[in-house]
Amino acid sequence: MTITVNLQKHINDSYGIHMQELAPLAFSEKVAIITNPTVADLHLEKLLKLVTAPSVKVVKIPDGEAYKTLETIETILNELFEQRLDRRSTLIAFGGGVVGDMTGFCASIYQRGINFVQIPTTLLAMVDASVGGKTGIDNKFGKNLIGSFYQPKAVYIDPFWLSTLPDREFGAGVAEIIKIAVTLDEEFFCWLESADLKNHEAIKEAIARSIELKADIVAQDEKESGLRQVLNYGHTFAHVIELEGNYTEFLHGESVAIGMVMANNLAVNTGSLSHKDAARIKHLLEKYDLPTSFSTSDPEQFYDSFFLDKKSHSGKITFVLPRTIGDYVFVDDAKKEWVLEAIKGE
Amino acid sequence: MTITVNLQKHINDSYGIHMQELAPLAFSEKVAIITNPTVADLHLEKLLKLVTAPSVKVVKIPDGEAYKTLETIETILNELFEQRLDRRSTLIAFGGGVVGDMTGFCASIYQRGINFVQIPTTLLAMVDASVGGKTGIDNKFGKNLIGSFYQPKAVYIDPFWLSTLPDREFGAGVAEIIKIAVTLDEEFFCWLESADLKNHEAIKEAIARSIELKADIVAQDEKESGLRQVLNYGHTFAHVIELEGNYTEFLHGESVAIGMVMANNLAVNTGSLSHKDAARIKHLLEKYDLPTSFSTSDPEQFYDSFFLDKKSHSGKITFVLPRTIGDYVFVDDAKKEWVLEAIKGE
Repeated sequence: MTITVNLQKHINDSYGIHMQELAPLAFSEKVAIITNPTVADLHLEKLLKLVTAPSVKVVKIPDGEAYKTLETIETILNELFEQRLDRRSTLIAFGGGVVGDMTGFCASIYQRGINFVQIPTTLLAMVDASVGGKTGIDNKFGKNLIGSFYQPKAVYIDPFWLSTLPDREFGAGVAEIIKIAVTLDEEFFCWLESADLKNHEAIKEAIARSIELKADIVAQDEKESGLRQVLNYGHTFAHVIELEGNYTEFLHGESVAIGMVMANNLAVNTGSLSHKDAARIKHLLEKYDLPTSFSTSDPEQFYDSFFLDKKSHSGKITFVLPRTIGDYVFVDDAKKEWVLEAIKGE
Repeated sequence: MTITVNLQKHINDSYGIHMQELAPLAFSEKVAIITNPTVADLHLEKLLKLVTAPSVKVVKIPDGEAYKTLETIETILNELFEQRLDRRSTLIAFGGGVVGDMTGFCASIYQRGINFVQIPTTLLAMVDASVGGKTGIDNKFGKNLIGSFYQPKAVYIDPFWLSTLPDREFGAGVAEIIKIAVTLDEEFFCWLESADLKNHEAIKEAIARSIELKADIVAQDEKESGLRQVLNYGHTFAHVIELEGNYTEFLHGESVAIGMVMANNLAVNTGSLSHKDAARIKHLLEKYDLPTSFSTSDPEQFYDSFFLDKKSHSGKITFVLPRTIGDYVFVDDAKKEWVLEAIKGE
């Protein structure tokens, strides 16, 4: 099946997400595959058999969020210049979210923009990074603070790659699926409560449903000026958790799981979510061994870090809170004391 | 007067170029002015009296093409993060082409894109960098090889700033004006032959006409997929001249002047331009003391460098050659020996 991401304001940038066993990909111009050593060891041989082009260069970047830096971007770009890739060349992102975000960013600034396609190999990248055109890198001020909105020409999702994914990373992907369900689709949430996502058919269905729901939001608000903020449920907290953990303690999806619980605390305190629904969400997260608590040494500093978030402006921060399961509300006037309580898990 | 740059495919990105004495500019959110020490010493005081915002930060970057690097971009971005600029903030590019190109690039990648406006202070930036949305930086492989297409929200052109511009830089700006006239408008070229651009009214008219002609081209081909290549007349050669001169020997406009003469050599050899018209163009360049020759130590290497140009693909390079004055032709099958002769001035 193919899900089309329709971008209403930039219709030429619309693209398809193809969910099927990966078929041969033929390019008429030079190609560079950006990947990391872990994915390359497991799957590169298979991919190279499927990709044909006048020239195929493989660029391996170190594995992990810690390397999602401007320095790595410069290394990749230099490799592309060495290979004399030109404006008609294509980059292939072959890996998880880090590889996808950095490849997309490189594609957006190499010679002012070249084509790229995504072949995500992690569950998180399949359900999240594959839709929305967000590219970027981290710096000492926070996560994804430098980047661009830049759409791939196509995304190829083959659940086959998940066969080698560690359980912890699988769970991190499930966190984003749960995030989508909680805010946008009660029926999907109920289905998740009873489904076993380790089952091949079930995970395919969960990926497809998550992508459809996210694509629908992105289509309406490509550049995150309003509606799209709903996708940040849990993320405002998660970004700070990742920063405090130096991007190494938790996987992104794990931080989002904790962030959702913190957002739920705030939602319960402000009356938009019942204790019962908050407990159901937490229970579903625990089913996939996701962490649901985090103790910060300094809640005040944690709070202060919100204001470096891209979504903050004029000293205000907008929280996305569930309003029952399957619905949400934007709150931009949460009192500091409520937020501190939510952070502390009170 | 205001000239509107209409971008047909991205109509929301259209913007106005305002040609008048700079009026007060009021912003409701944070602002950062990016400039260099030379412009700041001469004119910053005046600008600061005209700009009002909740917070105005000035970021000075070193003067000159040699600093148009990823390293300088990182320095600027860090200053913006320190000031906690957010997505509603605005960057103001106050300077020449280097300041404009880097400010635009920073605006395009800071938090995935914020607003910027341009207040060009050099003639080159007024007629060239102000139209077209090209942002970028150089690296060891060449000029403007990393960057983005990103439109300003507005451009404010006040010829007042030219009063302090050194003659050599003025001439470099005139080179781009001549480039536009040669390829697109014979009447404008004839007018230039008799005009004195040192005259205040004449330079205003020349700037406005150049912008109108360029804006019309950009409107039709925002991302340089075809027609817009006409603006590269002289530039294919100029980029290599600048690279060989380490970006210090010639100003950009001076390299373009030499590049136009080289392109004319090729045009005469291939029969698209008469000796007489080639001589008229050279004569007009000399009127503004622009260089018209360059001896490379290694014409073969000069030729080879073309293929790193962004406009090159699949080992082909497209030359823009004048076909009489006021018209042009794209040539992508020029024999190597002809090109070598054009480079050597034969």
